Amino acid sequence: MPPAKPRLVQQLLAECLGTAGLLCAVVGSGVMAERLAGGNLAVALLANTLATVWALYVLIELLGPVSGAHFNPLVTLVMWSKGQLAHTLPARAALFFIVFQLLGAVLGAWLAHAMFDLPLLQTSTKLRTGTGQWIAEAVAMAGLILVILRAPAGKASALVACYIGAAYWFTASTSFANPAAVLGRSLSDTFSGIAPASAPGFVLAQCVGALLGLGVARLFEPSSGEIHV
Amino acid sequence: MPPAKPRLVQQLLAECLGTAGLLCAVVGSGVMAERLAGGNLAVALLANTLATVWALYVLIELLGPVSGAHFNPLVTLVMWSKGQLAHTLPARAALFFIVFQLLGAVLGAWLAHAMFDLPLLQTSTKLRTGTGQWIAEAVAMAGLILVILRAPAGKASALVACYIGAAYWFTASTSFANPAAVLGRSLSDTFSGIAPASAPGFVLAQCVGALLGLGVARLFEPSSGEIHV
Amino acid sequence: MPPAKPRLVQQLLAECLGTAGLLCAVVGSGVMAERLAGGNLAVALLANTLATVWALYVLIELLGPVSGAHFNPLVTLVMWSKGQLAHTLPARAALFFIVFQLLGAVLGAWLAHAMFDLPLLQTSTKLRTGTGQWIAEAVAMAGLILVILRAPAGKASALVACYIGAAYWFTASTSFANPAAVLGRSLSDTFSGIAPASAPGFVLAQCVGALLGLGVARLFEPSSGEIHV
Amino acid sequence: MPPAKPRLVQQLLAECLGTAGLLCAVVGSGVMAERLAGGNLAVALLANTLATVWALYVLIELLGPVSGAHFNPLVTLVMWSKGQLAHTLPARAALFFIVFQLLGAVLGAWLAHAMFDLPLLQTSTKLRTGTGQWIAEAVAMAGLILVILRAPAGKASALVACYIGAAYWFTASTSFANPAAVLGRSLSDTFSGIAPASAPGFVLAQCVGALLGLGVARLFEPSSGEIHV
Repeated sequence: MPPAKPRLVQQLLAECLGTAGLLCAVVGSGVMAERLAGGNLAVALLANTLATVWALYVLIELLGPVSGAHFNPLVTLVMWSKGQLAHTLPARAALFFIVFQLLGAVLGAWLAHAMFDLPLLQTSTKLRTGTGQWIAEAVAMAGLILVILRAPAGKASALVACYIGAAYWFTASTSFANPAAVLGRSLSDTFSGIAPASAPGFVLAQCVGALLGLGVARLFEPSSGEIHV
Repeated sequence: MPPAKPRLVQQLLAECLGTAGLLCAVVGSGVMAERLAGGNLAVALLANTLATVWALYVLIELLGPVSGAHFNPLVTLVMWSKGQLAHTLPARAALFFIVFQLLGAVLGAWLAHAMFDLPLLQTSTKLRTGTGQWIAEAVAMAGLILVILRAPAGKASALVACYIGAAYWFTASTSFANPAAVLGRSLSDTFSGIAPASAPGFVLAQCVGALLGLGVARLFEPSSGEIHV
Repeated sequence: MPPAKPRLVQQLLAECLGTAGLLCAVVGSGVMAERLAGGNLAVALLANTLATVWALYVLIELLGPVSGAHFNPLVTLVMWSKGQLAHTLPARAALFFIVFQLLGAVLGAWLAHAMFDLPLLQTSTKLRTGTGQWIAEAVAMAGLILVILRAPAGKASALVACYIGAAYWFTASTSFANPAAVLGRSLSDTFSGIAPASAPGFVLAQCVGALLGLGVARLFEPSSGEIHV
Repeated sequence: MPPAKPRLVQQLLAECLGTAGLLCAVVGSGVMAERLAGGNLAVALLANTLATVWALYVLIELLGPVSGAHFNPLVTLVMWSKGQLAHTLPARAALFFIVFQLLGAVLGAWLAHAMFDLPLLQTSTKLRTGTGQWIAEAVAMAGLILVILRAPAGKASALVACYIGAAYWFTASTSFANPAAVLGRSLSDTFSGIAPASAPGFVLAQCVGALLGLGVARLFEPSSGEIHV
């Protein structure tokens, strides 16, 4: 008996829950880390990184079999573009995915606020802007798309988690690499927040990065003349 | 030759030893971390987290084949409720599991005290209370049940360990998520302790979270009409 | 073609090189960590722990196929006692294993000293003594034997490395759990050293722990009456 | 249908991209870590280590199927010497590999500078010299070659990453172990830099270490008389 294919409603629930879990982990561990770190921001970011890496690995493993575990509008768009011919992800489903990811991101940030006795509704005041930050977001996003498209079978969960862990440190922006994360984090005036005024620059840079990642991944595909049938 | 099924007495020993090992790791590494961290609580919690993650992974791998490696009364109750029809875990065995988990939790805390030259018998004075803490424990427990029920085959040990590592940081309560852990940690006036007065609130929140986790896990199951025989 | 069985001389080389690598990693990372940590001993022990965990995992994976990767006289004795009937490790080979482990431990400590521009010949002045420390070493060793004897196939390398990482923090002695490590570390007056006067107590406690680990492991074996042929 | 063998141009692109990614991760995370660590160099090196370990694991997994994921001129030379009879890596390809690795190293350091708003063109002023440092680089390189040549099938990515993570701490030089890394890091006056004047000593020590690693690996090969055909 083959396992039943998940229904669309289950896929949307998985995308919403997964993105909520990711944002709750990022925002919540940021609050905890900043409260305990006594001003040492490297220690705070280390804790924030480990919590994010572990949460991402768990969420992708749990929810990947249901929805593919995108948790990220640009990943959904890339998957839609790659699967267009095979209709593996119809445009309507891709659109719903993105809506539920954005919803999940907001709910995840609010859940973190509820746990840490903070006001639910906040807006970040942390400006993140400038050429360096935008290059960083483009690089972070290009790398993420490359990891997702080129990961050996069964290893995407570990590779995405490790990649984000590294990119928290080697990119100047701590690697948001996800428009849903930008939305959720713009609604949290805490360690991992981003001021709404800085959001458009980040999302635009991420779009550029996603296209770049798609292009680089294509360079590693076998050229049609080389395929041995 | 199929391997002999472990006897009940071996299963109870595994639950007692595993819960003792877990509590000894949590309490002991908390003492060590606080002594060395020179007041930086984030560094202390980082060390506490890593020791817990590694210990949990090892204990589940070692003792999972014997007893299923619950180490947690609410996990045992969930497993009993899921396996009721198949009689995989009879009610009597579930009850014994819980007794030996609670016994192990106490012995594990005491063993940590013995190693660190502390009085064996202590009671924690660390109050952990308030709505945020209770939401945190419900969320932590719901997530743990979801991880256990939805982990792909052979990955539960790594996923549970990583989940707890993340939840140490993204929940406001540092994620006890285990009534046996509440008992053991209430008997230790150290870094990871919890005052007995705060214990009922934590356990109640964990019960709510376990039910929530059961409910969410059910949403991802295939509906009966979709099962292809 | 089956792979050629390693010769005894290759096995002894593996035990010597592996124990040297382990001690070099423990002593060297201890020196580096203490130099950089600015007095925060928890940060120093965290770095020391991670380097040890990674080195142990790599050494067991590389050299396990050659010699079984004991790197530890008490592990060799346990393996000899378990394999007596099958003659998998003859008494003469076990004795040579131990000699080359002790030799490797000394060479590894000296290599670390050479890299850090320290005098090669040193004696530690760090006293590690008292009931708590001895209980800790017995617990650490019992756990290590249990991990080795009960690890699922193919997972011993990861489980031993994770176990030692946890035990660095949850035991009061930072878990030497290895008479060869006691020898090597007694010859290094650095972060991870142990005064020679404290060595006999540690080794004796480890012997007690090894016996305890053997006994506990036996409790989980199937009783003869249950084996289904 | 067997997968098409990657073309040489794809292999060179993989070596260039992989070495750039590695250097960008090392240099970038060094800048981030130093900026946030408030003077605690152990915390900075911990973050630098984790970012490097994760990045290395991801890059080897992604690009290994394309080019073998050398990212290191001495690894390429060792692979060329081992594969000479089988012509798996012709001399011309090996030479091109090295050129593209060196190019990638420079581009990776410059990309890190661009992200962190630093001048692209820099020269490190951090002297790293002396017998201890040179012994350290020889040891680090010998160990890396041994890991690569003796890693069990499918585990090279994890073992190389873990090895480098440990060697960051147990060698006095923080384990460059790669002439391309020496080049890239000599062009960055940041945490992970090395003054050009110190570069020749490091590279020479690495060459000695590579030969040493080749020699030690040979000791573990089955002798010809033992091969059972």
